[in-house]
Amino acid sequence: MLPYKNLIIIKDKSQIPVYKQIAVQFIGLIQEGKLPPGALLPSTRSLAFDLQLHRKTITAAYEVLVSEDWIDNLPRKGYIVSKDLPLVRPKTFRQNRSNSFSGKGVPNFQKLNPVLPHHFKENKGQIIIDDGFPDISLLQAGVISKQFQKSLDYFTYRASLRKPVTEHYNLQTSLCNYLKQTRGFDIETENVFVTRGAQMAIYIAASLIIRPGDKVIVSDPSYFIANAVFEKLGAQLIPVPVDEEGMCTDMIEEILKKNDIRMMYVIPHHHHPTTVTMSVERRKHLLHLINQYDIAVIEDDYDYDFQFKYDPYLPLASDDHGGKIIYIGSLTKVLGTPFRLGYMISTTEFLEEANKMRRMIDIRGDVIIEEAAANLINNGDLTRHIQRSNKIYAQRCDFLSKLLFKELNDSITFTKPSGGMAIWVKFNPEYSLEKIVNKAEKSGLLFYGSVYAKGEKPLNAFRFGFASLPEDELSTAVEILKNSIN
Amino acid sequence: MLPYKNLIIIKDKSQIPVYKQIAVQFIGLIQEGKLPPGALLPSTRSLAFDLQLHRKTITAAYEVLVSEDWIDNLPRKGYIVSKDLPLVRPKTFRQNRSNSFSGKGVPNFQKLNPVLPHHFKENKGQIIIDDGFPDISLLQAGVISKQFQKSLDYFTYRASLRKPVTEHYNLQTSLCNYLKQTRGFDIETENVFVTRGAQMAIYIAASLIIRPGDKVIVSDPSYFIANAVFEKLGAQLIPVPVDEEGMCTDMIEEILKKNDIRMMYVIPHHHHPTTVTMSVERRKHLLHLINQYDIAVIEDDYDYDFQFKYDPYLPLASDDHGGKIIYIGSLTKVLGTPFRLGYMISTTEFLEEANKMRRMIDIRGDVIIEEAAANLINNGDLTRHIQRSNKIYAQRCDFLSKLLFKELNDSITFTKPSGGMAIWVKFNPEYSLEKIVNKAEKSGLLFYGSVYAKGEKPLNAFRFGFASLPEDELSTAVEILKNSIN
Repeated sequence: MLPYKNLIIIKDKSQIPVYKQIAVQFIGLIQEGKLPPGALLPSTRSLAFDLQLHRKTITAAYEVLVSEDWIDNLPRKGYIVSKDLPLVRPKTFRQNRSNSFSGKGVPNFQKLNPVLPHHFKENKGQIIIDDGFPDISLLQAGVISKQFQKSLDYFTYRASLRKPVTEHYNLQTSLCNYLKQTRGFDIETENVFVTRGAQMAIYIAASLIIRPGDKVIVSDPSYFIANAVFEKLGAQLIPVPVDEEGMCTDMIEEILKKNDIRMMYVIPHHHHPTTVTMSVERRKHLLHLINQYDIAVIEDDYDYDFQFKYDPYLPLASDDHGGKIIYIGSLTKVLGTPFRLGYMISTTEFLEEANKMRRMIDIRGDVIIEEAAANLINNGDLTRHIQRSNKIYAQRCDFLSKLLFKELNDSITFTKPSGGMAIWVKFNPEYSLEKIVNKAEKSGLLFYGSVYAKGEKPLNAFRFGFASLPEDELSTAVEILKNSIN
Repeated sequence: MLPYKNLIIIKDKSQIPVYKQIAVQFIGLIQEGKLPPGALLPSTRSLAFDLQLHRKTITAAYEVLVSEDWIDNLPRKGYIVSKDLPLVRPKTFRQNRSNSFSGKGVPNFQKLNPVLPHHFKENKGQIIIDDGFPDISLLQAGVISKQFQKSLDYFTYRASLRKPVTEHYNLQTSLCNYLKQTRGFDIETENVFVTRGAQMAIYIAASLIIRPGDKVIVSDPSYFIANAVFEKLGAQLIPVPVDEEGMCTDMIEEILKKNDIRMMYVIPHHHHPTTVTMSVERRKHLLHLINQYDIAVIEDDYDYDFQFKYDPYLPLASDDHGGKIIYIGSLTKVLGTPFRLGYMISTTEFLEEANKMRRMIDIRGDVIIEEAAANLINNGDLTRHIQRSNKIYAQRCDFLSKLLFKELNDSITFTKPSGGMAIWVKFNPEYSLEKIVNKAEKSGLLFYGSVYAKGEKPLNAFRFGFASLPEDELSTAVEILKNSIN
């Protein structure tokens, strides 16, 4: 309901009778679009009360509007703005548009580089190749809704409401134990910081560390949204190539000798996008450099939990780094999009600032989601889910690898990963991935955040996320890809 | 489970028998804290498999560890790290701490000003005065959980998963209609941008507009977390006093004449913290200035929905501003902390950049929460909830006003607000609010984000959030306040 009391002003001294004054001002509201077609007008009784007038006066005004086809009087519904106002609509709508949220618009704001490829509306029957999402159909809906019910309990969230923003959540404690067991960290609850997703952790850490003009070492290629964040914060990116052993640490050493480096962003485990895992030698070398040159490091370990053969390396952060490494992980990769949850492990001093930064960005998290996630960790559902998922993802990875080898081996190169949710597929130079993608999309195969075919030196490669696709969809996808080559 | 395959290395040529090599390396893991007291060791079978050894060898190794009190063998549970390792624990823990997340820590990161007052742990029986939170006990838990069940439905969120980040949510459409009806905006779904909360909307809008050194007009006093954001982005704040008619627009005009102003942050409706609502004359003047000087404006309208008497003014943004105003609102203020949801209304051009910025911060929102909120809007539960809340908040506001007048009238000044969730209580200069707060907290009355008693020119005032407190708690609160004065 609009505040008619302030919108409809009655001039007592006017020549125009009151009911006409009202009618005219309603026409104004309709023409301005403040009362769009189909909008319900207030009842004669309530408007009479608001305007302190006799109800007969309002009825008279409405009758004028009805007779002039501005409004209709629907039985058992009341007066609504007429759905077709042919004469006025086009004019007034356009005119009014320019009055509100178009026109010249917000003066002189920053344009950012796109951080995701072009958008598209999904139609039925299409297959989307993502860059490595979990298959949330593996997460038994029953299991989750039970946890949601729990955290929805009125007392739980009334309590949560009263809890100050910086109070520890259960999730913080649950994560702490989970990470001790799986990552071999020696940490306290105070070293755990819960974020919306790994992305927010990256953003917060970077904005506390990076100042305009700072030099930041990133891998080449690297996770493009992280790069976008660093650049938005004014960083100068110094790319270091990735080979089959991970980032080239010798080159990093050369760079550190010659430059004043502010921060390093590394993905030693299942590097994004290439899925390469850094070798032991490189890890030792990197740790040595981190300590020798005393630089801040973000270790992005987004899918440590997904191992097909049981042999991950512990994160860099579990080794000796004197608190210089900020370790970032994701629960979204485990539980799926409905849980936008990630975490940052660092010193209490750093997390205190991270806490302030987070409050500027969104005060606090979703109590219900975080409680549900904590319960899933505590009762072991999370671990069971990961084990179940790993079995299935391993099968899908195997299935896709065989398929790619069988169908596309002459046109692509790829290495079957030891875990994770995606295969890094590189097309041979004679094929243009950009063309292939465009052609494939016409046949209903869409790529989401996974294609590296643009930029100065296009990689002609994409991340083939297999985790979220059942085998039949994987087959269709590869078939469409094959047909899109020529 | 730790990746023992890589942690436990067997030297074939070693003099030491294999079972002892294993035992020694487990002791290492325990001393480093990678295996904390109580941690479960892998079963002899699974470890034998991982290390490709005979199971008897593992058993022998475990027997050594048991005999040396490193681990215990619990019936039906297996081998766990002994809970008391008096000789080693203190030393190894401290030593290991300094190896992981303490030590010197992240080099040279930015220290931010605190954006919330000192934290506190809540104990039973305490009363917290917030700066204006809703009482979520008014939101029928049944109503919500029904909506959560709906959005939890597997198909719903599988679909949501497949939906690209920038795809429209139902919530966007629902909000668009809701805002058209309540704010008189002439907008399309494309003009609506959903965020985590009003806070994130403020952060995103500001970071697209403000560049280091830019001059930003804010009210004095103003919402302190918004100020913190602008300063973090490098803005120079230009404060404009607030009187009983809102921000002094004459002073704004003077400032605009003399300075190159980048942005203006205004709260015309229930100003935060003072709860003053800007007069019609000032609104007209302000709109005139905005258009004349062509500056970007953030209109923060966090509690428009809470009106005790039915006579709000429409937002500035509903009037003619050519898209220069970015309108920000909150659903958290309506639905309570569990729903961290806000929105930004602006031109499609601006929201396109906002979308990129948001993806850098946290990619996307919580599907489940957003779906639930959309349903609450569509089926009318939201409006019913607002109407119900307004009745109760009006009573509590009335109750508190009478109480404050009766009990504290000689020591404070305040104006009963026409809506919202808080009363702005100003203590007379002869009383130190800081002292009062400290004394009150000893008696179990805590203040959360509501006290303006610090800084260069302390206001000696606080926001008395009445919405979340039932009458008995309001009485106790005022009683404690009274007793804390002397």
